[in-house]
Amino acid sequence: MATEQAAWPELEFWFEFGSNYSYLSVMRIAALARQARVRVLWRPFLLGPIFRDKGWSSSPFVLEPEKGRYAWIDTARRARKYGLEFRQPSVFPRTALLPMRVAMLGAGEPWMEAFCQAVMRQNFVDDVEINEAAQVLRALDGLVDDPAAVLAQAQGAANKLALREQTERAQRRGVFGAPTFFVGDEMFWGDDRLEDALVWCRKTA
Amino acid sequence: MATEQAAWPELEFWFEFGSNYSYLSVMRIAALARQARVRVLWRPFLLGPIFRDKGWSSSPFVLEPEKGRYAWIDTARRARKYGLEFRQPSVFPRTALLPMRVAMLGAGEPWMEAFCQAVMRQNFVDDVEINEAAQVLRALDGLVDDPAAVLAQAQGAANKLALREQTERAQRRGVFGAPTFFVGDEMFWGDDRLEDALVWCRKTA
Repeated sequence: MATEQAAWPELEFWFEFGSNYSYLSVMRIAALARQARVRVLWRPFLLGPIFRDKGWSSSPFVLEPEKGRYAWIDTARRARKYGLEFRQPSVFPRTALLPMRVAMLGAGEPWMEAFCQAVMRQNFVDDVEINEAAQVLRALDGLVDDPAAVLAQAQGAANKLALREQTERAQRRGVFGAPTFFVGDEMFWGDDRLEDALVWCRKTA
Repeated sequence: MATEQAAWPELEFWFEFGSNYSYLSVMRIAALARQARVRVLWRPFLLGPIFRDKGWSSSPFVLEPEKGRYAWIDTARRARKYGLEFRQPSVFPRTALLPMRVAMLGAGEPWMEAFCQAVMRQNFVDDVEINEAAQVLRALDGLVDDPAAVLAQAQGAANKLALREQTERAQRRGVFGAPTFFVGDEMFWGDDRLEDALVWCRKTA
């Protein structure tokens, strides 16, 4: 099985725990990719520096009130369509640095999918802060032998730098929002392009 | 047939001839709506005043270069998926005031669909200016008895005012981009939500 999957075409999945449309993709991508026989490369990155680079102080859903109001209605509708629980967070966008660092560390690990889904559920279902050690440890619970050790490693200088560099890589590749998918250099933006990206991935495999 | 259609649930379709994603919807909506047994209420409005109200001097696809680059790739990909011709216009966004005024006049007329598709093809397939009398007359050719008379009426004070008021109505309803669909007060933004809007329309009929 592992050998078979190694031969599957690859889809890069760039996402942020603070992003509501990333929530939809984090919950959907692994199952859809398995169905499509596509391997997901998890690429956590920080949206904050990318928005700041455009001169924005926050998410467009905060800076443009009409678009923001709509985005919550749309996200709730999409979640319902996909059979996903969803609650509009009382704080948006939530700072996600700590869990993002853990995701940076876990990208190639077998616990990545479950960890990301747990963090996303904290933000978009339970409506609790996610940038706290206690929550991150809770999300890691049962997934790794020693959650505290994973958290400590995620807070190490090398991993912090790795996440910063990954964010710069996103910027260089023209990423302007999340989620974003890449099949080679072909870019797809938004949870609503996930299916198209998977089809593209198979077609060009 | 006409009586049967009068009983169909209604979908409001807010669009702009300058908008690339409106192009996709203008080409798709009538056939899809007939299939779904939904009546389309055509609602032309001007994006310019709405963007200016946000403090924007142009389309976000111009003001945000990364998003703009992506939008053209995405539009071309979607057009291919739908079997539609598409060429990235050499001028974007094109001023569309004149054909928009004709659309304002034609919204309830049997020639509306064909006229809108003709204008959209001028902009996004033939790559020619659309804010010119000659082009508008060409788009009306064969659809109305007297294209010049229709154009003259479209340029009348009452119709100019009607388009201005319709644009203000869009703004008041929270429209921030095009295309936008409404089923009652339920809003759907983007060509990629057209199918969802039609399903919603049938479900709530």
